[in-house]
Amino acid sequence: MREEATAFVPGHITGFFSAHPDDDPTKAGSRGAGLTLTDGVDVTVTRADEPAISLEGERVDIDPVYTVLETLEAPARVDVEASLPLGSGFGISGATALGAALAANHVFDRRLSYNELVTLAHGAEVQAGTGLGDVVAQAHGGIPIRLEPGAPAHNVLDAIPARARVEYLSFGGLSTADVITGDTEVLSAAGQEALSLVVDEPTLTSFIYASRRFAREAGLLTDEVRDVLEAVADVEGQASMAMLGNTVFALGTGLSDAGYEPSVCGTHSAGAVLK
Amino acid sequence: MREEATAFVPGHITGFFSAHPDDDPTKAGSRGAGLTLTDGVDVTVTRADEPAISLEGERVDIDPVYTVLETLEAPARVDVEASLPLGSGFGISGATALGAALAANHVFDRRLSYNELVTLAHGAEVQAGTGLGDVVAQAHGGIPIRLEPGAPAHNVLDAIPARARVEYLSFGGLSTADVITGDTEVLSAAGQEALSLVVDEPTLTSFIYASRRFAREAGLLTDEVRDVLEAVADVEGQASMAMLGNTVFALGTGLSDAGYEPSVCGTHSAGAVLK
Repeated sequence: MREEATAFVPGHITGFFSAHPDDDPTKAGSRGAGLTLTDGVDVTVTRADEPAISLEGERVDIDPVYTVLETLEAPARVDVEASLPLGSGFGISGATALGAALAANHVFDRRLSYNELVTLAHGAEVQAGTGLGDVVAQAHGGIPIRLEPGAPAHNVLDAIPARARVEYLSFGGLSTADVITGDTEVLSAAGQEALSLVVDEPTLTSFIYASRRFAREAGLLTDEVRDVLEAVADVEGQASMAMLGNTVFALGTGLSDAGYEPSVCGTHSAGAVLK
Repeated sequence: MREEATAFVPGHITGFFSAHPDDDPTKAGSRGAGLTLTDGVDVTVTRADEPAISLEGERVDIDPVYTVLETLEAPARVDVEASLPLGSGFGISGATALGAALAANHVFDRRLSYNELVTLAHGAEVQAGTGLGDVVAQAHGGIPIRLEPGAPAHNVLDAIPARARVEYLSFGGLSTADVITGDTEVLSAAGQEALSLVVDEPTLTSFIYASRRFAREAGLLTDEVRDVLEAVADVEGQASMAMLGNTVFALGTGLSDAGYEPSVCGTHSAGAVLK
């Protein structure tokens, strides 16, 4: 009998999105595009009497993770080591839910397929209101374009065939739940427009341009982010805001060229995997 | 102007399949399941006056690669470094076509999406008769289950959420074209049955069992492969035949436990990527 398993799930920065709510959580989700990152989370699931979650050793509650454990009938402790901050636009709650699904399926021999586990984590995340598209992007890897929303049975994904060095600088959190459960009409119109730009030209240049335009039009720019984006533009760097976090990301050396000391990683070529 | 680019594409061992021909090469393909491998091909595309292909420095002709270059209007030399033999059931022709598509798109700034490049390579492979499902599996990575045939606009993929050490031993080639353009009725019935076993239980154990059963029922076992499979079974190892090659693959240490000296690699977590 297996006692524990660990999954790695890449972080995911959404550049732009439109929200597509639905009563069926496997149909609800978002369209948009983003970068999956070599920085992410290691999620270790260990058999236990009571479910419990720790992040870097501190007890935390991440609702979608409990949902995943309950659905898999998997009483377990979930220990998360994250190279990215929670609540800052890196999709950490979704990543943790997906990692818990993969690892718990392995430990408890539940024999679900990859798509079934992704569906479970996506549905749990949508129901918790913590994200709409991170899980399916993190299951895919690379630089996914989410053409149609929802879990694998419903969504349509494509990708930008490229890789990039990614820099980021985070000033802390924004509440995803506040934004995606609020009035999303303006935001979603801007997201659809950004998506059509990237579908026309699926390149990194077009992605970062569409993302910056979305951030402005959706009215989500914070003052801190706006200042940094101006500084990066002044040195002809390419940057935008992580949706949804008080976080700037740049391609290449945009942030360091502008004199900041960003964290540095790269796009991740694979989706979530058991280690 | 970019002069060259390199893509890595994982090898792919098909365990079982059913053939689904169609006049439209984006709809034609196969159902089945297989392992993508950390062994694969590095495909370097360099601008040149005339198209030419080399494999380990030797001039070769791989028809789908020419088709890819022509379609992308990309006059180029294609240099392939392969850690797997050609024509032995590792999907090397498809891998080379897909790698050429990714790298040529980058060198010539053709701005196609990942799915468009996969569609191009898949169609070229189907038209050449060198394969039916390797390209879409190699674009996906992991241990893909091909639920519906064809290029990304038409296919449906899932995966076995696992990873494995893979051993293989190759006695040379079988002609894919001879098998897949011949009478595939018995083969495809056996392939569909194998697929339903793996859909019911998407695990490595079920995959290798279904693959072995398919190899027997489809009448494709060569004498050399049969002898090795018996030897691996004698030491309670798990092995089957690569479709289509005169090649045995085993999970874990099946072949070495039986006294052979196999090549060793692992399942690959990502699909094809630019390096």
